[in-house]
Amino acid sequence: MEERIIVKISELETFVIDVLCNTGLSREDAEITADVLISADRRNIESHGVARLKRYVDGIKTGIINSDARLSIVKETPVSLVVDGNGGMGQAIAYEAMKLCIGKAKKSFMCFASVRNSNHYGIAGYYTMMALKESMIGISLTNSAPLVVPTFGKDATIGTNPISIGFPSKNEKPFLLDMATSTVPRGKLEVYSRKGQSIPDSWACDETGNPTTNAGEVLKNMINRRGGGLLPLGGGTELTSGYKGYGLSAVVDILSGILSSGAAGLDVYGKKGAPAEMCHFLGVINPEAFMGLEEIQGNVDSYIQMLKNSEKAAGQNRIYVAGEKEYEAEEKNKVTVSLQDKVFNTLNDIGREFCLKLSKS
Amino acid sequence: MEERIIVKISELETFVIDVLCNTGLSREDAEITADVLISADRRNIESHGVARLKRYVDGIKTGIINSDARLSIVKETPVSLVVDGNGGMGQAIAYEAMKLCIGKAKKSFMCFASVRNSNHYGIAGYYTMMALKESMIGISLTNSAPLVVPTFGKDATIGTNPISIGFPSKNEKPFLLDMATSTVPRGKLEVYSRKGQSIPDSWACDETGNPTTNAGEVLKNMINRRGGGLLPLGGGTELTSGYKGYGLSAVVDILSGILSSGAAGLDVYGKKGAPAEMCHFLGVINPEAFMGLEEIQGNVDSYIQMLKNSEKAAGQNRIYVAGEKEYEAEEKNKVTVSLQDKVFNTLNDIGREFCLKLSKS
Repeated sequence: MEERIIVKISELETFVIDVLCNTGLSREDAEITADVLISADRRNIESHGVARLKRYVDGIKTGIINSDARLSIVKETPVSLVVDGNGGMGQAIAYEAMKLCIGKAKKSFMCFASVRNSNHYGIAGYYTMMALKESMIGISLTNSAPLVVPTFGKDATIGTNPISIGFPSKNEKPFLLDMATSTVPRGKLEVYSRKGQSIPDSWACDETGNPTTNAGEVLKNMINRRGGGLLPLGGGTELTSGYKGYGLSAVVDILSGILSSGAAGLDVYGKKGAPAEMCHFLGVINPEAFMGLEEIQGNVDSYIQMLKNSEKAAGQNRIYVAGEKEYEAEEKNKVTVSLQDKVFNTLNDIGREFCLKLSKS
Repeated sequence: MEERIIVKISELETFVIDVLCNTGLSREDAEITADVLISADRRNIESHGVARLKRYVDGIKTGIINSDARLSIVKETPVSLVVDGNGGMGQAIAYEAMKLCIGKAKKSFMCFASVRNSNHYGIAGYYTMMALKESMIGISLTNSAPLVVPTFGKDATIGTNPISIGFPSKNEKPFLLDMATSTVPRGKLEVYSRKGQSIPDSWACDETGNPTTNAGEVLKNMINRRGGGLLPLGGGTELTSGYKGYGLSAVVDILSGILSSGAAGLDVYGKKGAPAEMCHFLGVINPEAFMGLEEIQGNVDSYIQMLKNSEKAAGQNRIYVAGEKEYEAEEKNKVTVSLQDKVFNTLNDIGREFCLKLSKS
């Protein structure tokens, strides 16, 4: 039985910031990173929350993440940016790039940034929400480690490459899509494997490239690079349209890693121990480029209501709109969040080196 | 057994143009529409080819499509447009709007148009290809008749809302994604229903909102508006991530129908016999906004090669990249295309009214 530990958000924040500062990150970058991670936990996206702190700390220690790096602007127009992350902390790079996009979109109606040579930036939706807070439309995409097998392939060559896009609303919660382009993330396989449950055949494929229901085998194959991996949204066959998820994943790769002349596909985390070279694509659209904020907000509200008020399937009493579950979790987790005991213990293991301790609430 | 009839493309073109002109479309708009339809047939996307001519002709005759309408510009910035199609022919409206986007993207690095009050515009990819021909990045989205049931719903409230995006290449064929955000289009259900074959359970749901394998029942329910319909990409359960396809479909609706204050969701084809009020979202990005055409083309080539050269699944000898199959079909169908005999006969039925005849090659 998995135990949950309740911690105060304010304490968790201080703890994560202190750990990252002690590891070598500037205080400012540590604050941004802590906010991105804890936002994920508050929104019940635990896979991308403080459970990942160890990976970031290890990344800084081993030099995969260059904690001193600042972004540099490679190319710039009134509506676009090519940004080099110089191997820095993904969250800090993406935050800074998104700030630049917001500034440009205020003046020039929109701005898109293709960002190369960065690192894992946490939840894609965080940066979309930065735009929403400014009453703008936000877009956030990133490539990632190749874990996904393209249609008719047997090796993982593309990432789970998420797509996030958000639109401001008036009385409803903003529309906020944040989805991997694979059917599920690797973490879901781990959960099913631990429980010894079989998985739906649209989740993963075996070492020959055929869909499988055995999560444990897939994970073993992934670790030993024996072939197989996650399947794109739509699954592992042409019949169920797996090529669509594969196509979307490639679009994310191209916008992020190809427009910026960064890394894409197998080149992300291409060399063991070397910088990850992850790439992002961030965008902000000023509603004034179209029918204007107020009108669009009203339209978004009506659209959300239309979806939510439509007839429910047998046994269901609610239709959700993208982002709704996460907003509700965030509201609920205002003062505290609950962590897996394993995660809580790992955090304290990390903190010990710097005489830092995270307490239960 | 289905028979195929070979026709010369030049003759098919003349025939379709003449039919549309006689129905009331200007010669210029008829030429554009014929090119969009025949492009689909050449690319083996028969569902969106000349098989649809009757629907367009009927649309013009019944006034759902206003054959005289020209687009008007509702709002304009250097990088954006809100366009009103005034109920005109979808292909002509979208073609004209895309031309405007290309012109603006040459000057201002990019342009996006949200287009309201239009009609069915054929294959989304046609407009993306217009940008590709100018060595630009193209985007083409459209909402459509509500045939798709959102996750946890039982009624079709959203369209198959396709996403097309294309990137220019150098020696490889351009990358060209063109995909419905439902698992499959309605036409696929018709094919399986005719053959009496059961369908995968990620394609459609019954009148209670539950996934079904009985295509015939779904089609009957759709016609009688008894509930049920197509499922979003990812299928009808949360477990297989159907909410992702649902979310993507909503994004298309919002960009097309909400940013332009047009119709979205149930409001598309909302009133029987009234204009469809379909909405599109078109975009062009100048590669000079990012690393520049030549560099990006080279990067796209390398990326495509990486994907294609990766290991194949057991029993497969080729990995495809988005658009590749369609380009190959287009190459093959340079002089003639083959039509279903049923489609060939319908075309001649339409032509008879205007003393027009389409011959076999």
